[in-house]
This record gives sequence, structure tokens and C-alpha cells, in this order.
Amino acid sequence: MNDASSRKTAAILTIGDELLSGRTRDANMHYLSGWLTERGVALKEARFVGDDQKDIVEALNALRAKFDYVFTSGGIGPTHDDITVDAIAVALGVPVIEHPKAIAMIKAWYSARGEEVTPARARMARTPQGAKLIDNPVSGAPGVMVDNVFVMAGVPRIFQGMLHAVEGEIERGAKLHSRAVMAAGLPESQIADQLRDIQSALKGVTLGSYPIDGDEKGVTIVARSETPATAEAAIVAVSAAMRALGHEPVLEDHRSGKVA
Amino acid sequence: MNDASSRKTAAILTIGDELLSGRTRDANMHYLSGWLTERGVALKEARFVGDDQKDIVEALNALRAKFDYVFTSGGIGPTHDDITVDAIAVALGVPVIEHPKAIAMIKAWYSARGEEVTPARARMARTPQGAKLIDNPVSGAPGVMVDNVFVMAGVPRIFQGMLHAVEGEIERGAKLHSRAVMAAGLPESQIADQLRDIQSALKGVTLGSYPIDGDEKGVTIVARSETPATAEAAIVAVSAAMRALGHEPVLEDHRSGKVA
Repeated sequence: MNDASSRKTAAILTIGDELLSGRTRDANMHYLSGWLTERGVALKEARFVGDDQKDIVEALNALRAKFDYVFTSGGIGPTHDDITVDAIAVALGVPVIEHPKAIAMIKAWYSARGEEVTPARARMARTPQGAKLIDNPVSGAPGVMVDNVFVMAGVPRIFQGMLHAVEGEIERGAKLHSRAVMAAGLPESQIADQLRDIQSALKGVTLGSYPIDGDEKGVTIVARSETPATAEAAIVAVSAAMRALGHEPVLEDHRSGKVA
Repeated sequence: MNDASSRKTAAILTIGDELLSGRTRDANMHYLSGWLTERGVALKEARFVGDDQKDIVEALNALRAKFDYVFTSGGIGPTHDDITVDAIAVALGVPVIEHPKAIAMIKAWYSARGEEVTPARARMARTPQGAKLIDNPVSGAPGVMVDNVFVMAGVPRIFQGMLHAVEGEIERGAKLHSRAVMAAGLPESQIADQLRDIQSALKGVTLGSYPIDGDEKGVTIVARSETPATAEAAIVAVSAAMRALGHEPVLEDHRSGKVA
């Protein structure tokens, strides 16, 4: 995709054996991708690794050097398999401390519920040295911001809550506008030459071609541009090509909430 | 996760702007993860990159050096945004050729349907030099095997068809058996110490703790081991700990088809 240099870049590192074993299907990457697109930030890469310190450190160091923002998902709970905070501290070369504000937040959360702060719960107050906290509106224990890394929970509801809490930390960029058109029954292989020509003729637009469940049921063409009029112009050209091939184009309502 | 050295390792590289922009939610990583777990192969990493040759080359070279098998998903269709074959040839340092068997397969597929092999369709016969083909039972144009890389389509139905077609190429390993137990209303933070003790006491088992939508609605504990009896023993111990905390453990039927 053509990215304007003004747009910030991001990656997500998702951590958890259960995602690589097939037990759990991740939801956070997809949620984050739409959230960033709406804010004009380009998600450029996603990685998934298991609960292994070496793998987490290696992936985090690669991603934080390469992109403006790195979001991590998973591994910050109270149990033995929650090793993300330690791994991130190792990656950054800083010690893990008990964060004074975090332990206060956790104490307040549990005492309001008449429960004790056990050592396992206190563990969630550990952060890499120099970290700031991310509010957790769902379950009390905060996430962590350190350098350009946002360390967030894996449970989707908590991940989403934390994401909204870091809204103010993210620099918005030029939003990518997308327009889409679908033709039922048109194989993408029939319109491939026309797409190539339209892509070459128009500047500042990227065309994506997405067959519907194979090459024979139809195709959706998406035009992405920082300028809505350019995306529209591309879709007008694609629609004309679809009509010339004997297939009626069906425009997607771009206010439907479907992203880029 | 503890992996026996006998088990082969794998990664998936998923390619497509639409997955990073939030338009499309990927399904292939999750499908592959379960498929590999059932065959005793350890999926160790997943990466997602956009339709960008440099990004694909860099990710592929990192993954193919590190793991026994690399599966790619996406970017092998007939349109201008399908750049995976070229990127893989660049990564391997070999030219792209028109594969004689592939072009014959594509001709046979389209002529059986009374359709022409346009240049766009012929493009799907291009492979890195030295590649073998992967049958595509859904839409004709084959996938590609080259070195330890399996190059497959992004459309889930085609991806799955190609995966079954490479069954014989994958060396099965010791299968990871999993057993799981759930306690409604038990916060994982209450059972964290007991889990740590059980994990330390039992060899050859990995315990995962997965809160149900936050820390207060309950928790599922999964024990993974190459020996079913070891996984069972861990779950018996976890169940006893749940009961001691006043929560009734509910065993998950391990024949339910839910994987590891």
C-alpha cells in the first residue's frame, strides 16, 4: 500500500500458546486494524508468538525498531504463564519494578470489592522501569506504556478498553479512504487487465481485488486513497469495466462502517 | 510451550493489505493452527504483512531459516496486487518461470468450462524455478511448494483445499494432548499460586490459564502434554484446587474437537 510519509506506522505483537495451538481464535488484531485505520495510522505488521521469553524479546525488538507504535496483546495477568512484562523489560534492558501507582490502583480495585491483594494480584503491578500506566476500566490491573510500546491485555473486552484509554497517545494521520464495488459472478481473472490499467493510470490510489470464495462467484474491488475523490474516480472506472464485461456493479455503502 | 525435539516446527506468513486495514478478518491462521496441532506439528509463529515485496521477502527469509515448514496465505491470484510468487522467488534468489505443468492444469480447468486462458489467468502458472505444485480442488490454479515453503491461496476454502493436498508432505510428530477444566466465577488471580505449584511439581506438562472475559467471570485451565495421562493428572490437581476454593470444576470433553 502507498503510505504517505505523514502517516504513523504500527505493529501488533500477540502473545499466547492458545492462539498458536488452535484453541483460541484471536480477535484483537482485527479490532486494532480497524481502530488504527479510522485514526489514519497504518498497521504494517502483525506477529503472533507463544509464551516464550526469547521469542517475545526477539519479536518485540524487531518491531519497536521498525514502527512508530507497537501494541502487545496478552500475558499480563496474575498467573505463571503471564510473562509479557518480564520479557519486555528484558527487551528494553531495564529492570522490572513494582509500580507505586499500579499497586495503589490494584489495592483500590480489590478493596472496593472486599477482596485481598494476594501476591498473585500484586504481581500485576510489576512494570518495566520507566513505564507509564494504561487504565483498565474492566478489571482493574493496568496496562503499561514504555517507549513506543503499549502493553495490553489479551481478553478482547479489556484490550479494547485499554485501547480507548490510550487514544490521546496516538498521533492521528491522513485517513485512508476506501470505496468498494462488487460484481456477482464476475471472476477476478476476467477483469485483471482492466484493473492493472486503472491502477497505472490513477495516482495516489491502491486497488485491491478480492474474489468472493473463489474465482467464479464474483469479486469485490476496493480503492484506497487519502483523497476520497480519487478513490471514487477509481471505483467509477472499475464499475465501467464491470459493465463492459456484462456484470452489474454494486457499490458498497462506504458509510456502512466497513473499514478500508 | 515445552516442545519435544521430535516435533517439527512451522510458521505462517499471511499476506494482504485487507487484513491489516481491518477490512477482512483472517481465518487461515486459526484453521492452520488446529490442523497442525492435530498432526503433532508445532506452529511457533505467525506473521501478517501487506502487499509489499520488501516486507514479504524479509518476513519469508526470517521464517524459512527458523522453522521446518512455512505456509504462506494470499497473493497468488491473477490480479496486479498478487505479488507473492515474485516476492518468494526474490527471497529464494531464483527466477520466476512459467511452470509447464501449471499452465497445462490451468488450460485444462478453463477449457473444461468453455473459457479462454487469458494472460491474467496464465499468470497463475508462474512459479519460482524449482517449485512443485499443490493441487487446487476449488479453482484450478495450483499452489506452490519450494524448499520448505508452501505457497497457498488466501481464500479460506482454497487454502483449506490446498492444505489437505499437502498432507503427505508434512512429517507428523508426537501429538500434544490437552485437557481442560473450567470454574465459573473463580478469578484466575485466586488460583494463581496453586497453578504455579502444580506446574512446578509435574514434568512434561504446560498449564495455560485463560480468564473468561475478564478476571471475575471464571477461568479455564488447559494442561498440554505429549502424554495424555500427564495432562489428566494435572487437571485432577487443578480440579482439586478449584474445589478447595469453593468452586465446582467442570471438565471439558476432550473429544469435543477443541484443540490443544
